[in-house]
Amino acid sequence: MEFGRKLAARWAKSNSLLCVGLDPDLTKIPASVSHGPQLLLTFNKAIIDATADLVCVFKPNSAMYEASGAAGIEQLQKTCEYIKQKYPDIPILLDFKRGDIGNTNDYYAQFAFNYLGVDAVTIAPYMGKEANEAFLNYKDKGIFVLCRTSNPGAGEFQDLEVDGKKLYQIVAKHVMTEWNDNKNCGLVIGSPYPQELADIRSLMGDEVTMLVPGAGTQGGSIEASVKAAVNSEGTGIMVNSSREVIFASKGDDFADAARSKAEFLRDQINKYR
Amino acid sequence: MEFGRKLAARWAKSNSLLCVGLDPDLTKIPASVSHGPQLLLTFNKAIIDATADLVCVFKPNSAMYEASGAAGIEQLQKTCEYIKQKYPDIPILLDFKRGDIGNTNDYYAQFAFNYLGVDAVTIAPYMGKEANEAFLNYKDKGIFVLCRTSNPGAGEFQDLEVDGKKLYQIVAKHVMTEWNDNKNCGLVIGSPYPQELADIRSLMGDEVTMLVPGAGTQGGSIEASVKAAVNSEGTGIMVNSSREVIFASKGDDFADAARSKAEFLRDQINKYR
Repeated sequence: MEFGRKLAARWAKSNSLLCVGLDPDLTKIPASVSHGPQLLLTFNKAIIDATADLVCVFKPNSAMYEASGAAGIEQLQKTCEYIKQKYPDIPILLDFKRGDIGNTNDYYAQFAFNYLGVDAVTIAPYMGKEANEAFLNYKDKGIFVLCRTSNPGAGEFQDLEVDGKKLYQIVAKHVMTEWNDNKNCGLVIGSPYPQELADIRSLMGDEVTMLVPGAGTQGGSIEASVKAAVNSEGTGIMVNSSREVIFASKGDDFADAARSKAEFLRDQINKYR
Repeated sequence: MEFGRKLAARWAKSNSLLCVGLDPDLTKIPASVSHGPQLLLTFNKAIIDATADLVCVFKPNSAMYEASGAAGIEQLQKTCEYIKQKYPDIPILLDFKRGDIGNTNDYYAQFAFNYLGVDAVTIAPYMGKEANEAFLNYKDKGIFVLCRTSNPGAGEFQDLEVDGKKLYQIVAKHVMTEWNDNKNCGLVIGSPYPQELADIRSLMGDEVTMLVPGAGTQGGSIEASVKAAVNSEGTGIMVNSSREVIFASKGDDFADAARSKAEFLRDQINKYR
């Protein structure tokens, strides 16, 4: 199914705008998880089962799997397979922030859409539309382009002024108008920046879907970012939390703690949407 | 050994500024290569052995391995291991153009520097220095930041004007002055843009090392780009060619053809440096 429709259906069914980031770290996984060769997968399954009814989307972060090499990539694939089989109505957004020339992006897209079979990806804008058409041409997939990122130093280039507009505003405009022939583009705008979220919502209208990372650990306020970012229907966003949910407890109760934290975040988001 | 010294030693020993890109594509590898489960590795070994004395650096492109999933990543690791064992004085530059928040970049750096053990990487500038410190802090590794890329649509954002300067010029200046505390930064500037190459060389002086992709297949002229980009010592650049070398022939003679093409390119580059 086309990503936008799948996400809209999931927003409705789950009554949740929460995205849980599957960013497992070998050194942070609780000792109570069976430490076999499939540790990342075992941990992910527990987190997925504990939080599935509370989320609108799962977002594995490619980096944490790559750090374990081929074995990590295999577990990323199995994690995606697990979600697709057990929770087929929950979209999977692969956070991998790729961006290269078109010929190379073709292969990154194969990794995401063929090997892993995810529903959406994050990509980097710097090389322009022409290079990223390799992603954009997958019209049933969601393509989320970095716009105003969640890190403290995001403004170094993103806030530079071009003819009175900031670079991230120009990126937003290009992506949502010129790149969006297949109506499959969205934007990544960090939770710690409610002004920027409000600014893009007002500039781009109800249509744009935003991935909003950085709530919690990275300093973003749920209240401020949700109020700034939701559209007039109270949707249009996926608010991501990764470490705060999946590492909510390092004890035997890690899955229950992840569920409690996810429930708390879902309710907080719903309070302000 | 620190990347800059390793590269300088290799420039001197090989008398070559040619970088061969190891971008194997399952569908383009000649039928004469034994089509077993390690096809990418088998092909790479033949290309590496055929061209090793003609190159200053090998540059595997992560995308082509990721497209084959875990099996591809395993062969990327074995390709790097093969180069390190058989040709320890040839630096390996992993082209993966990553860029995320610092916490995530830590894991991408682990993939590159621990799991693969490469000498240098390419990264994306958009998220700024603060996010990329996870890479920059590896002071013995080369960190090549996308500046003016080789694709036809590179100018969409990279040429935007900020206070009379283009964005790629600002990126170049930030990277070479503010990001470069460990003297381990370089820039990626495409061969099809000799004016931009000359511009950065004149702006940044002899010190900066540039990765120059896009000669040949992507339309860059060796003469124009080398003349524009070399420093006053006739070095300071790695001129990359990937498909043009590794797929020079689809017949049984593919390794010999790759060698001939690499030799031709090395000589062309040397003619104009």
